[in-house]
Amino acid sequence: MKRDIPKRMAERGLDALVIEGPDGTHGANPAFAYFTRNQHLVGTVIVKRDEEPLLLYRSMERDAAEATGLRLINLDRWPLHEILKEHPDRLEARVELYKRIFRDLKVRGRVAFYGTGPIGAFYAFLQKLAREIPEVEVVGEFDRDVIAVARETKDPEEVERMRRVGQETCAVIEATIEFLRAHRVEGNTLVKADGRPLTVGDVKRFVRLELAKRGLECSEFIFAIGRDAGVPHSTGRPDDPVELGKTIVFDLFPKDASGYHHDVTRTFCLGYAPPDVERAYRDVREAFEAVRERLRVGEITQTYQHFVCRFFEERGHPTVLSDPKTTRGYVHSLGHGLGLEVHEEPTFPTFGRCETRLQEGMVFTVEPGLYDPEAGYGIRIEDTVYCDEDGEFQSLTPLPKELVVPVR
Amino acid sequence: MKRDIPKRMAERGLDALVIEGPDGTHGANPAFAYFTRNQHLVGTVIVKRDEEPLLLYRSMERDAAEATGLRLINLDRWPLHEILKEHPDRLEARVELYKRIFRDLKVRGRVAFYGTGPIGAFYAFLQKLAREIPEVEVVGEFDRDVIAVARETKDPEEVERMRRVGQETCAVIEATIEFLRAHRVEGNTLVKADGRPLTVGDVKRFVRLELAKRGLECSEFIFAIGRDAGVPHSTGRPDDPVELGKTIVFDLFPKDASGYHHDVTRTFCLGYAPPDVERAYRDVREAFEAVRERLRVGEITQTYQHFVCRFFEERGHPTVLSDPKTTRGYVHSLGHGLGLEVHEEPTFPTFGRCETRLQEGMVFTVEPGLYDPEAGYGIRIEDTVYCDEDGEFQSLTPLPKELVVPVR
Repeated sequence: MKRDIPKRMAERGLDALVIEGPDGTHGANPAFAYFTRNQHLVGTVIVKRDEEPLLLYRSMERDAAEATGLRLINLDRWPLHEILKEHPDRLEARVELYKRIFRDLKVRGRVAFYGTGPIGAFYAFLQKLAREIPEVEVVGEFDRDVIAVARETKDPEEVERMRRVGQETCAVIEATIEFLRAHRVEGNTLVKADGRPLTVGDVKRFVRLELAKRGLECSEFIFAIGRDAGVPHSTGRPDDPVELGKTIVFDLFPKDASGYHHDVTRTFCLGYAPPDVERAYRDVREAFEAVRERLRVGEITQTYQHFVCRFFEERGHPTVLSDPKTTRGYVHSLGHGLGLEVHEEPTFPTFGRCETRLQEGMVFTVEPGLYDPEAGYGIRIEDTVYCDEDGEFQSLTPLPKELVVPVR
Repeated sequence: MKRDIPKRMAERGLDALVIEGPDGTHGANPAFAYFTRNQHLVGTVIVKRDEEPLLLYRSMERDAAEATGLRLINLDRWPLHEILKEHPDRLEARVELYKRIFRDLKVRGRVAFYGTGPIGAFYAFLQKLAREIPEVEVVGEFDRDVIAVARETKDPEEVERMRRVGQETCAVIEATIEFLRAHRVEGNTLVKADGRPLTVGDVKRFVRLELAKRGLECSEFIFAIGRDAGVPHSTGRPDDPVELGKTIVFDLFPKDASGYHHDVTRTFCLGYAPPDVERAYRDVREAFEAVRERLRVGEITQTYQHFVCRFFEERGHPTVLSDPKTTRGYVHSLGHGLGLEVHEEPTFPTFGRCETRLQEGMVFTVEPGLYDPEAGYGIRIEDTVYCDEDGEFQSLTPLPKELVVPVR
């Protein structure tokens, strides 16, 4: 949580954090959005140890700057047009700007940089900064950085936002299932009023409108049928007809205006499910329940990934643990944290060192799955789970998990 | 254009470009999307000089990888689980992975890195890479990098996409004006069927649905009235009623599924316009036309920013050229390139060195404006303009520019 940042800075010997904006219009700079309440603006957040964060902003965005609730300093204090007169080269001008800002705000010592930006340009800039400001040690944290670790546990306000996004997301899925059920069956496909087959593209258009009606955004999502459902990240082919008796993987991970995401997957068959799908679905469902029952504060996340691999292997399915290249069976990881990003800390890695333990405030997905693209099916069940202040694991995904959706 | 990349690499002595993914789900990694046709996937694009680009991808995303049309190499060729056994630290494992990839693919010499990512993590990674792979010189380009300069001019396929997005965007604006006009007037505000005032929030909800219906995405846009219209990047307050006789700045910059954006602003008053607004609108409109008439291939972009500043100053308006801190008058730059980002090359800077010249294939905005937040108005007129292969400048924004929108 945000309140842990001073402690983490002390542990890592960091004197200041610099979080680079902008968050233009796509909400794709989560570390910056974490401080700016997802306001859209150009600027830089500076956090000195044991001081309140402050935002350097531009006049043009003074309303958005006010709305962040941060302490504010207008960038006009360091007029760029004057710097550019002396330093017409833009890289030199930028370094000079930071020299002045750091001097005036007494930013020195070990200073770590965060935010999402063009990696090559920042590599050039930070290298030059490190050379030219000797009183600043430029730090880049590679893994589980201070802000990522703070964001890993959510405070009550964040959880309330995520709960609301979860409810709205589930409402979209329920509306979609009603939409499907409202269609007639002809032969083995759903058909529209004009007699033509309902397609994946038609369904996706319906989902996009439902998302917009509820103030949700999701640039991409998965509605994949049959063989495509068997490829975990296949998003579905627009021209595919919606057929009975095939697995449909519907994976939706929108955010609302707060910038917080939900992530849910349901797998269903319209009308009926073939026996091999029924068996595999039962295995996924039981794996899901087995994991849910075993979630405990203090346990290492990787434990659950290994647990679910062994669970599936005992039932005869290949997994990434025994065969890392497999594209059949259980082929991904059990889950991931989410919040301002769809994928953030914690992770549930199959391999490598993992010291991350479940703790109060974490919000993450549990999403076991089984895939067989050659047999033409894929199954994934995914809820978003929250570990509350009592260490209880609650689902934020109020939605049933039924394999067969009856049709007319 | 993409075909210019080998020449630019040669000019800058670059042996390879490495463009880091992922483009997760937000389309916020434009350099990567430029090569991957806006497919959503984890991976890395490598461009060796005078060779076709290739994509390193994961099995889970093999469908998206196929859809990029790039040469493909599955990352399974360098099994991460094996590397992690020897190098459990994730930064060390990542450097080792790149050592193997660069060795096997013969990537060496001056290698420049691109893509949007966490700047601190990449700073740590690229520094370590530079230290540990002596046969590679890690390059970060700060300004107008090879890919940005390639993207600055659009090929015919890109222009066709942008033309379509422009048509759809203008249709949304026209539908919104019809929506406004369909409301009754009571006193000085528009009212809904239930007698309550129509608000900025109501209008924004309408716009979001219209965008979704047309397959457009725009996480944020500006629909700001009166004083808020006077602050260029103020997005509008949801509870504000839609009143007659006040300027409404409507600035919309969506993208479609191709990832390409349009950007248009119209300013209008419902019912009538006050005389000071009429005068200022005429000045903005004439500034717009004067710039449009003067656009010429080969001219330096900054020339137009200085031209429009002088144009406004002659009519008595303060500008950023004479008073860089002004919040009244003309307070921003004349325009910006757009494509896979809303803001990309070319720029039209007021200050600093600028050697960018207008050329065939460029797509950019022309958007003069005048603001007076204390008087309670703001005016901006913006079209997206394309310089075709004959050096003619075409508008991609088929939309009238009328100040007064009549109401019932």
